[in-house]
Formats: sequence, structure tokens, C-alpha cells
Amino acid sequence: MGYTEKDWLAINTIRTLAVDATFNANSGHPGAPMGMAPVAHVLFNKFMKFNPTNPKWLNRDRFVLSNGHGCMLQYALLHLFGYGVSIDDLKKFRKVDSITPGHPESHDTPGIEVTTGPLGQGISNAVGLAIAQAHTAAVYNKDGFPLIDNYTYTFLGDGCLMEGVSGEASSLAGHLQLGNLIAVWDDNHITIDGDTNCAFTEDVAKRYEAYGWHVLKVDRGDDDLDAIEAALKTAQSVKDKPTLICLKTTIGFGSLQQGTHGVHGSPLKADDIKQLKQKFGFNPEQSFVVPQEVYEAYHLHAADGVAAEEEWNELFAKYAQQYKAEHADLVRRLKGELPEGWEKNLPLYTPKDAAVASRKLSEIVLTKIVDALPELIGGSADLTGSNLTKWKGSVDFQPKANGLGDYSGRYIRFGVREHGMGAIMNGIAAYGTLIPYGGTFLNFVSYAAGAVRLSALSRQRVIWVATHDSIGLGEDGPTHQPIETLTHFRALPNCMVWRPADGNETSAAYYVAITSKHTPSIIALSRQNLPQLEGSYLENAIKGGYVLHEIEKADITLVSTGSEVCICVDAAKELNEKHNIKARIVSIPCFEVFDAQSKEYRLSVLPDGIPSLSVEVMSTMGWERYTHEQFGLNRFGASGAYKDVYNKFEFTPEGISKRALATIDFWKDVPNIRSPLNRAFQQLI
Amino acid sequence: MGYTEKDWLAINTIRTLAVDATFNANSGHPGAPMGMAPVAHVLFNKFMKFNPTNPKWLNRDRFVLSNGHGCMLQYALLHLFGYGVSIDDLKKFRKVDSITPGHPESHDTPGIEVTTGPLGQGISNAVGLAIAQAHTAAVYNKDGFPLIDNYTYTFLGDGCLMEGVSGEASSLAGHLQLGNLIAVWDDNHITIDGDTNCAFTEDVAKRYEAYGWHVLKVDRGDDDLDAIEAALKTAQSVKDKPTLICLKTTIGFGSLQQGTHGVHGSPLKADDIKQLKQKFGFNPEQSFVVPQEVYEAYHLHAADGVAAEEEWNELFAKYAQQYKAEHADLVRRLKGELPEGWEKNLPLYTPKDAAVASRKLSEIVLTKIVDALPELIGGSADLTGSNLTKWKGSVDFQPKANGLGDYSGRYIRFGVREHGMGAIMNGIAAYGTLIPYGGTFLNFVSYAAGAVRLSALSRQRVIWVATHDSIGLGEDGPTHQPIETLTHFRALPNCMVWRPADGNETSAAYYVAITSKHTPSIIALSRQNLPQLEGSYLENAIKGGYVLHEIEKADITLVSTGSEVCICVDAAKELNEKHNIKARIVSIPCFEVFDAQSKEYRLSVLPDGIPSLSVEVMSTMGWERYTHEQFGLNRFGASGAYKDVYNKFEFTPEGISKRALATIDFWKDVPNIRSPLNRAFQQLI
Repeated sequence: MGYTEKDWLAINTIRTLAVDATFNANSGHPGAPMGMAPVAHVLFNKFMKFNPTNPKWLNRDRFVLSNGHGCMLQYALLHLFGYGVSIDDLKKFRKVDSITPGHPESHDTPGIEVTTGPLGQGISNAVGLAIAQAHTAAVYNKDGFPLIDNYTYTFLGDGCLMEGVSGEASSLAGHLQLGNLIAVWDDNHITIDGDTNCAFTEDVAKRYEAYGWHVLKVDRGDDDLDAIEAALKTAQSVKDKPTLICLKTTIGFGSLQQGTHGVHGSPLKADDIKQLKQKFGFNPEQSFVVPQEVYEAYHLHAADGVAAEEEWNELFAKYAQQYKAEHADLVRRLKGELPEGWEKNLPLYTPKDAAVASRKLSEIVLTKIVDALPELIGGSADLTGSNLTKWKGSVDFQPKANGLGDYSGRYIRFGVREHGMGAIMNGIAAYGTLIPYGGTFLNFVSYAAGAVRLSALSRQRVIWVATHDSIGLGEDGPTHQPIETLTHFRALPNCMVWRPADGNETSAAYYVAITSKHTPSIIALSRQNLPQLEGSYLENAIKGGYVLHEIEKADITLVSTGSEVCICVDAAKELNEKHNIKARIVSIPCFEVFDAQSKEYRLSVLPDGIPSLSVEVMSTMGWERYTHEQFGLNRFGASGAYKDVYNKFEFTPEGISKRALATIDFWKDVPNIRSPLNRAFQQLI
Repeated sequence: MGYTEKDWLAINTIRTLAVDATFNANSGHPGAPMGMAPVAHVLFNKFMKFNPTNPKWLNRDRFVLSNGHGCMLQYALLHLFGYGVSIDDLKKFRKVDSITPGHPESHDTPGIEVTTGPLGQGISNAVGLAIAQAHTAAVYNKDGFPLIDNYTYTFLGDGCLMEGVSGEASSLAGHLQLGNLIAVWDDNHITIDGDTNCAFTEDVAKRYEAYGWHVLKVDRGDDDLDAIEAALKTAQSVKDKPTLICLKTTIGFGSLQQGTHGVHGSPLKADDIKQLKQKFGFNPEQSFVVPQEVYEAYHLHAADGVAAEEEWNELFAKYAQQYKAEHADLVRRLKGELPEGWEKNLPLYTPKDAAVASRKLSEIVLTKIVDALPELIGGSADLTGSNLTKWKGSVDFQPKANGLGDYSGRYIRFGVREHGMGAIMNGIAAYGTLIPYGGTFLNFVSYAAGAVRLSALSRQRVIWVATHDSIGLGEDGPTHQPIETLTHFRALPNCMVWRPADGNETSAAYYVAITSKHTPSIIALSRQNLPQLEGSYLENAIKGGYVLHEIEKADITLVSTGSEVCICVDAAKELNEKHNIKARIVSIPCFEVFDAQSKEYRLSVLPDGIPSLSVEVMSTMGWERYTHEQFGLNRFGASGAYKDVYNKFEFTPEGISKRALATIDFWKDVPNIRSPLNRAFQQLI
């Protein structure tokens, strides 16, 4: 309340910065920043607490620009408040190697919480941030110590609302009664194709009410700052529901083309900019202008944030005295350190141990490490009993009111919402205190491809427990049997795809997944039982690939992963007994990690001079990097008992032997066989 | 109305068949069939028209089991009505090479319209089927000739409703006012994790009302056949809205475990089956029993279907006299034939023609062929102006009531709903009269991975117009720049991934996409301009790969796709001029199609004796199949002007030359260099 010309000057400064930056870049999206500048001004100055000098302060309010194409709004705010984003950075908007890329990237730019742009992700990340806040608060807050009470705010556009991933996450947010989550929908009636009337005529407010959200409407988002403030205040006061504020705005406010899709994704024309600056009282001859009084006002709020963190630090210091263990634990988490010795809980196996499905081995790992790793939080997309993601004694992460758990619980019922789960995990990881995992069938990680890609790009430690990892799932058939899935995610940069062959490799997968702070992991796990292998050791498996079985003067190297390694072991026996052929066996549970080893080590695993054959019951694509010949499945699978399916496609000791013999024969006349690891030049990284 | 014991006998026959088949398979999902048998009985006998002796009759009502795991319901119905599904087939449920796989597959089983199982797909396919019906009716129906007036019915479960893809498709269905679509939600309150209370507490009815659907509730779906019938009748009568019937049922009705998740995904135990059969009046010692009177009743309805088609055939014959052209056109479409000479409209280019972005070349193709190919229908996921998917003079597919088009329109505004678009396209293709295409950025085809996979598995001719296909999109940056995407879909069986280099290759891509009746295509298209290449001809490009530039005694083969082919041309010049190196140039716009050529042809393109280097600005994974060395981008891209980004990553004539020299040097001592096309053994197909 009490808004003055000064507020409008600030709002119009944001607008002109967005206009200037997109014009200067000759590309970008001025429309959303111009339309949302008023709500951003009110939200950031009247509601949000944050400290620009320490963008990582734990109890800061989180802000997510789900309509990430509008990032000049966010860059302008970061600049005005004094984050490490200079006017020069704004001038480098959308230029190579700037910290102001075309869509906001969290690892590039101080103050950006999550990487957005792909529509629907940001609002779903925000649900994850809110879950993480609620859980962290439930764990650490004590009477008189409201250490963690931040809100998560997100702006989103029509596009975000049309994407299914936002529906999945929003439905869950309503179920979870996340009162700490406040979303503002930029209801400007415009998408790239024109008026939303052409494709998007649903009643959004009613839909969100159906999800269990508290819904508010502000009709004059362009000029009614009081109404915006009142709505945000009401939203904060509702503690048992997330809030959606439906804010009517005019896209590209101030432009001659305002209210049309002409201002969505292209810079304004020079004469349009001129009239706009005149209208807003800016000098049309100047660009990137910030009036001193705007800086002053924003820096004043920034100083409030500094003070707020100082106050919080004092509270936290007091907390240290009364809750020593909790304090130490939280400090540790914030440093990004793991509890000392947690890894000693990882189970180890010998060949005498029973054959166990690797999904079960994964359950054993989770059960054993969950006490030592209190930051581990996760669940399943409604496949708990199949993914085996739940440990004994776990408490559901649920609102107390529904009687099924509470926010201190660490088991999340994601529902049948893989994409939402993926995006929510990104938000949980981004919060800074937790390591999220989520279970589904490997085949349905593909439903979440959009979110997995952002885990990798934004360097989030997210773990997918991806069971039923091949035709070995059997009867469910081709609709559920992955063929292309491992190749897909192996081709994704900064993503570890693990396919452990036994218990020690499963422990290794978790070890590397958990200790890799900036890389997501997909752990592909079998439905069927796998024996504990001779030659498998955790310390080898964490290298991503190793020699399981060495033999002198080998005729061939059999290279495999997961459930096919043990079949290769039998094939090697058969080759030896029936054909007097000596086969080495190599297991490569993770390409990405193996690739990071020294060339010397890698060549010791896949040496020159010996032909090699890879064996994996899915697409052979990608295996050509490691082996000379590939036995796989470049077609869809079949529905049937898993052994019948394996037999059908000849993934048997005999089937492998046959191809091993063909491989040896095919390469017998080649002198100095070169390992495929040898390359003419290095790849760019 | 007037239901008798005979109806219950039929319903219980379906239930016991589902129980017996899952018990016999020792796997599967009895719960849903047992709960939905009553509604299935009423729907199929009282409402649906179909002819089991001709499952492809155009005007049949379509049925989609979106909760595909309940497929024993559908298999039982197909059997009882006399489709080509025998009792023996039911006994082979979930066994290798049966026509009764664990989830329904349309190419395997007569009477299955679309392949379902992955949740949320079926209901979205149903939206596509309804769109196709509405369009086909608008085109062919005439006064007195209601040729096409079928309904599309779908059953779906809680899982389908939680998946975002169904939300996307349902929102669009509401917008499009598809009164021909009737969905029945199996509201049994049970998912795999237990009670839906744990994750799914939204108000589904309200959400669907918000989408613009007509929503009905039936409280006693287990026993109130009259109420079921009344609801279906009301649903049929509402012509301007799709209907959702919320049907309360008991999962596993009749089992001792009914109403629990214990009956969802596992066969019943023997003693449970015993009591159930006794309760239903069946002999507990017998399995797979169908009382004769049930056959008779169902065959009676089947006979009605035969008669209905006969009547329809008469109408169609009359139509032939009055509407000769339309009749001929529809007959042609139903035969799966394309209009004669349509391909003559494909534009051809010479090197003298201007450089044009391949997305623009795609627009030119669409514009030129759209009149000749009236079955082409498509649109964009709200990127019309970027994807260039709309041709001049096109009419929107819209309900007349909104004033933006009508159902005869062939341009679909999908909204920002890539996954929904993919699944809807599968439904449109499955209808049988249309060829759908849909536009988005290549990077966001990944959002639709679940649907693309089903296009491939179920052999649907679906075309993705995937523009902005690389770092060449420039300023939008890494969040929008595909790296893993081509590899992902190249690894998917039965999926053509095209990346044309110029105009002739773009025409070739469309030619093959349209003439390949059983394979989806993704056509990756550039944002930036590409020159028309010397040596590019449609008749070469349709082979998937060919020699663009041959030279005797070549030192190296440069192999590339899309926007990098022209850079390779410049690199070859530079190699020749500065280094006296002779480079052949090969373009492989489509792996899948190239792989289908004879080995002799392929070896003529990628011959022995010459080292080869692939050049493509994204993941190198997969290229090892074709080339000795690979230049690509195994990391994320960068935001900036596209030339700056290409320079940063050295995709320039100099950068390519450097790597070509390294390749030649690295392979110089290898005698008899073998083309990677040579393989020790054939892959299984």
C-alpha cells in the first residue's frame, strides 16, 4: 500500500531494461517482463526476503520464473538488487559465454534458483522447493527457532499451465497441502499462436481449485499494485493450501503492440521503443538506464535482506547451543558434505551370497544407508512394491491433516506422475539440504525426459531408481520393455546411467550417485534375480568399468552390463569347454564414469589386440565406442516369461558363444586390432 | 434396462475369464477387468456398433482401454463377440508370440484399436480418434448420408488421470467440444501404492468440468446396470462436449481381496478363485468356461454389427452415385493408397536456388502438397510461426461454435502440449483416414517420448516437424538446444529420424515419411538458412544416405547431416586448397532408411579403404556405426548468435579440417581400413 511514482519508476525501469536488452541482443522475449514488472516489483520488495550478497542463504525465499523465456525480468531484478549481475551482463544478454543466457541457468547466474525455459518445469521445480522447505523445517525447526520458514514463489504463463508436467506437480502440491507455495499466473491471454482462445479455453482457476489449491484473482495486474499486494498477503496467510494468483496482465505493456503475440518473442522496433520510453518518462536516446533512486530503493530492500540473514545467523548460533547435533548436521548439509562413514553401510557381497534381483539389492542399499544419510528423501511414482523404494519404518511425507504421515517423513508418494516427479526432484535437490530419489520402471523414465535433461544441464544430484530395466521384466511386454532408453540417457551429457550386474555393483552405483554432487544418476535395475559375481568388487565397479574375469592370451573380450554379465560368465565357460576359446569378461556398469578414467586404465580394461563383443539386451547404439561387435536388441521385445523372452532373442550362453565365435572369426585376419577406445582426436568438453 | 440373470452370467463370465487367464499366465492384472466387467457388458452390448468379422469397418465405434493392464477385459470381450481371439489365445495370455500380450498391441490382435499400457496414452489416443472422426465426418458426410457418425469410448483408471499427458489431451478435447468422445473413469480408489488417498485426492470431476467436459457420476458401478446405461445414453446425447463418466467400482469384484491393491497386479490365489467361481455359479474345477448362452447373446449383438455394416455398405454405394469424387477419395484412403501423382508436387532445387532454412523448406513442402494430399492434417504445439507448419489458406480444426474454424479444417492448434500432441497424433493415425503431423522444437519432442515410442511400436504413420534442431537455434540457449535427441530417437526401433541438408533432402524426407505407412518420422529442421547443395538429388536422398561429392583416390570421407553438410563442403575445399587432401562427402539424412539399403549400396557410400569422419553438432553416440571418427558435441550448447555458437565449438571449415587431418593421420598406418559397416554377424530383427 502507499505506492508512489517511485514505484512506477522502478517498474518502468525493469520494463525498459527488458526492452533494451532484447533489442540489443536482437532476440528474446520482452513481452512477459513488461507485463509482469508490476507484480515482480511488489513481490520482491514487499514480500521476499533474500540477501544479494549471499544468494545461497538457506532461509531465503525462493523465486522461480517458470516462464523462463521472460528471464530479462529476472536478470533486471537481480541487477537492481545488487546480485552479481552488472549492467554489462545485461548488455551481454543472449551472447556466448555471458551469465545472462536466453533462458535462466542456475549454475551460471547468482540468484537463479533453478534452470527454466522448457515450459512447465519451473512450477514443478517450485513444488519440489516447497516440499524440501516443508521437510527441512519439520526436521530442524524447534520451539522458538523458526529457522526455516521461507516461501517459494513462482511466476508462470499459459504455456506452463498447458504442459502436463505442471498438472502432475500441481495436483501433488494440492494433495500435500503446501501452504508455502505461491504461484502467480500471468494471465495475458496470449501465446505464440496468438490468443489463447485458439487452444486454451479451460477454466484454470477451477482446475486449480480441483487440485486443492487456494485460488485468487487480480483483475488489474497492470496498474493495481494494492490488489497485487493484497492477494500476495492473503496467499501467505493460507497455510494449508498452495495458492494460485490469477493475474490479468497486458503482455508487452507500453508497447504499441501490447496485448498481442507480436511482443512475445521478438524485440520491439526502434520507433516503438522510442514512444515507450517517452511515455514512461525515459530519455529515448539512452539505453540501459537505471535512475539512481531506483537503485537506492532496491538496495534498501537488499540491505533488509542482509540484516535478515544476520538476524538469522544469530538465531542459528543460539540454536547451535541448544541443538548441537541438529546444528552440526544442518551445517554439514549446507557445506555439501556427506556424513562421515555413511558409505560403510553399503552392503558388500561374495559369490557365495544368494542370487537377488538388483531392484531388491537397491532396496537393501536404501534400507542400510537411510539412517546414516538423513538427507536422502524419495519415493516412487506409484510403483513402491515393484521399485522397492521404501524401507522398513519409513514415514510418508504427507500433511499431518490426512493422517498418513507428516512433513518430517522421507517417503514421498509421487503418484503416477513420472515427469512431475523428475521436475519435483530437481526442485528438492536445488533447495540445498536434500538428496532426492524417485522410482519408476526404466521405460517410464522417458516420460520424464524433459526433467531429466534439466537435472543434467543444471547439475542436480537426482537419483532415478529405474527398475524392470529390460525385456527381463517379461510378461508386461514391449510396451514396458526399454530398448532405446539407456542409449537415450547415455547420450545426455552429465548424466550417469548405471546398470549394475550384482550386489557390489549396485552398492557402487549408489556410492557414485550419492558422492557426485553435480550429476544426476539413473540406476537401471532388474526384476529378475542375478547371482553375486566372482570378480565383482565395489572398488572396481566405482570406476564405471572393469575386468571382471581376466585370462591370459584371451581370444575375445565379452563386455556387458547388468543382467547379461552373468550370462556372459556362462558363455565364457561354454566357449572354453566346447570351443577351447578363452574369453575375458568386462563389466561396464556406467559409461559416463568409465569415460572419466585415465586412458591407460580404460585400455587395460578394453585392450588393443583382442576383438571384443558387447552383450546387452537392448539397443546396441553407443556400444560401438567400446567394442568391435555388438549383440543387442534393435527391435521391440516380447511379452512372455522372462526366460522365454531371453531364449527367443538368443540371450543365452549359446547365443552369446555363437556371436563370440563369429566375432573372433571376423577379426582373425586383422593385424594389430585396435581397441575402439583409441581416437584420432579428443572430444570437446 | 430390463437386465436379467443372463446379463450377470455374461458379466461373471468375463470376470472368470480374466481370473483364469491371469492365473494361468501366473501374472497380469485381474482387478480392473473384474471391476469393469459390468460397464463393459452394457457399453458393448447396448451402445457400441462393430463388426467382429471386419474389425476395420470404417464407421465402427472405437474402444480404447487406456488402463491397458486390464487387457484381459478386452481380450475376453473380443473372444465372446467372435473376433479372431480364441479360447486358446486366452490360454496363451502373456506368453511369447501369442496375440494376447501383457498389454494390448494393435498390430497383434484383431479388434485392438491402439496399443496401450503406458498410462495416460489411451485416453489421449481416444482424443485423436475423436478428432479424426469429427474431421472425416465433416469432409464426407452429406445431407442424407451420415456416413461417419461413430463414437469413441475409452476406459481409464486413476493412473491415466494422474499422468500429465491425459490432462493435456483432455484440455484440448474440451476446447474442441468433442461430443463424440465418451470416457469412463474406473473410480475404484486403488492404485499400486494402495488407496488413492495417499497421492491423488484432487476433485477429478471438477477438473474435467474445468476442461469443458460434461461430467456424470454413477455411484454403484458394480451392480447398477440401469444407471450405467442411463449415463451412457446421456453422454451420447451431449453433442458439444466430451463426457467423463465417473464410475465407482470395486477393483477385483468377487475376490476375497476385492477393493484392495492386492488384486491389482497379481493373479488371485487358487482358493480365492474357488470361492469366486462358486459365488458366481461357476464350476470351481473348470477354467476358461463360457456358457453357451453367453456366446449366443454376444454373437447376437455381433450379428447386429454385421447387419449394421451391411446397411452402411448400401448407404455408401448410394453415396458413390451421388458423390463420386468423395466416394473414390474415401475408398482410396481406406485402401491405404496415396493420391496418384501427389509426389509431383514436392519441390526440387538446384544449387542456384537461394539458401533457405530447412524449417522454411518444410513449409514450402507442406504448402505444395497439401492440396494433393487431403488426408494430411496437422498443426503445432503453439509454435506455428516458428515451426512454419501452417500453409496459406488453411482452416483451423475448431468447433464451429468458437468462430475460429470448423471440423473440416485441417490445421490443429495443439497448444503447448507436446506429449498430448504425440498421443493425439497416434489416435488420428489409427483412425484410418488421415496422416497427422505436428510441429515443435526438436528438443521438445523429448517431452513426448512416451507417445513417440508408441507410434513406433504400434506402427503409426505420424510425422514430427521438429524445427530448431541444434545449437544452430542460437540465442535460446542450452535449455532448447538438442544434444541427445537424435541419438535417442535413432535408437528407437521403427522410427525414422530425418535431418535434411537442403531442399531436395527435405522433399525426400517428406516423400519417405508419407509413403512409409507403418513408421513414424521425426524430421529435424534448421532455424538457420542452408544452401542448396551440388550433388543433392531427391532420388539419392530417399535412400537415407548417399555420396554427395565423389572424388577419386580420396584421403577421407566426411559424413554429415543437415546444417553441417554445407560446412563439410567448405571444409573439403579448404582441405584441398590448403592441405592437398581429397575428401569425399556423404550425407546421411536418415540412419533408419540407409540401414535398410543393400550392403553393396551402403558400402559404395561408406567404402573400405578410406577413413571417415562424421560431423554433426550434437551427441556423437551412434555415429560409430558408420564412421571411424566422430566430431560432435557431447556437452550442452551455449546461448548466443548461431554463428558465434558454431565458432565456439569449432563447427567451421577450419575445425572440421583440423579433425579430418587428425583422422587421416591416425588411420594412415592401418592397412586395409575396414568400413564400420562390416559386421561379424547380423542383428536380430
